[in-house]
Amino acid sequence: MSASQKKTRGELIVLSGPSGVGKSTVISELLSCRRDIHFSVSFTTRQPRTGEEDGVNYSFVSRGEFERMIAAGELLEYAEYVGNYYGTSLKVIREQLDLGVDVLLDIEVQGAAKVRERCPEAVLIFLIPPSIEELSRRLHRRNTDEEAVIQRRLEKARQECRECVHYDYLVVNDTVMNAAQEIQSILQAEQCRTQKRIGLAQGIIGLPAD
Amino acid sequence: MSASQKKTRGELIVLSGPSGVGKSTVISELLSCRRDIHFSVSFTTRQPRTGEEDGVNYSFVSRGEFERMIAAGELLEYAEYVGNYYGTSLKVIREQLDLGVDVLLDIEVQGAAKVRERCPEAVLIFLIPPSIEELSRRLHRRNTDEEAVIQRRLEKARQECRECVHYDYLVVNDTVMNAAQEIQSILQAEQCRTQKRIGLAQGIIGLPAD
Repeated sequence: MSASQKKTRGELIVLSGPSGVGKSTVISELLSCRRDIHFSVSFTTRQPRTGEEDGVNYSFVSRGEFERMIAAGELLEYAEYVGNYYGTSLKVIREQLDLGVDVLLDIEVQGAAKVRERCPEAVLIFLIPPSIEELSRRLHRRNTDEEAVIQRRLEKARQECRECVHYDYLVVNDTVMNAAQEIQSILQAEQCRTQKRIGLAQGIIGLPAD
Repeated sequence: MSASQKKTRGELIVLSGPSGVGKSTVISELLSCRRDIHFSVSFTTRQPRTGEEDGVNYSFVSRGEFERMIAAGELLEYAEYVGNYYGTSLKVIREQLDLGVDVLLDIEVQGAAKVRERCPEAVLIFLIPPSIEELSRRLHRRNTDEEAVIQRRLEKARQECRECVHYDYLVVNDTVMNAAQEIQSILQAEQCRTQKRIGLAQGIIGLPAD
């Protein structure tokens, strides 16, 4: 990025998508290309899955601690999903955005709706599977849940996908590379939007700063 | 682009910017990377500059012929600029868009405003110089006009730049590669916009087609 294209405030990016769509893999690929993005680790009360690390995938907290955070107004958004709480810390996000750092949130549809309400300038991206059959295959391949849980997740996934109409962008996760590349283009394009660059333009061409 | 990401209708892209900003060079770079884009050659009544070819840079026509096209309703937009007409053929654009081909128009601000009116879904991009001093240097370097003409163009350029607020995106032409790359990202991001992909999403996840 050249000096003339520096921006002052970071972009708040929300990525949602149903269980099994491959969000974590796409996020890893994206973050490996865009090391300047801050990935906001959500707080959750659910049990860690095999291989998940506290503070990396999620910050795992007790139900009591989570409810304290709600009461103290420390969360930008939170939601209950399949019996567990998930939420986002407001403080960390604000600090990063103020520093000009882009912040990526991996949150589900209820949480995204709350972010939209509180931060209308946030960029909302929904990751959809290439087909429902493929989503089902991916959920089975994950193999960490019983069949009944998988079926519940699949039904929930269909419901969540219906909410994609409220997002700014839809990205199909047919391959991880394609999906990560499209998200990168979306982020670059968003930086070029007139309302975000108007200050820069005023500086260059002496627009009246009304 | 994968099969699941094919689109049915082309994107209408408008690129504007003041004289001397380097639009032609950016367009050449863009078209060399995106050979699938159809560049719509404008009609004009102005004299060809050294090196300009009829049907490549512009379709050069007489004032009489241009006025016939206006009367026959054959133009999507036209405008008079520094004593000459410039206009865009409606027929060619429609054919390409219907075939799913993206169409790029290089038109000035009056023309762009008319396109916005008639095609609200068009993507409007304004190319701004990295500084007014650099724009002045570029206009002088072109060296095809007298000083008085250059000064008139520079004043006109300042006025045109004020219109950038009506565009969707601002791209700073600090280097041709950066500018062309940003435009490519904008075009890719636009294809991901929810309203443009909702048909695809309906097909994949069985959304109600309301």
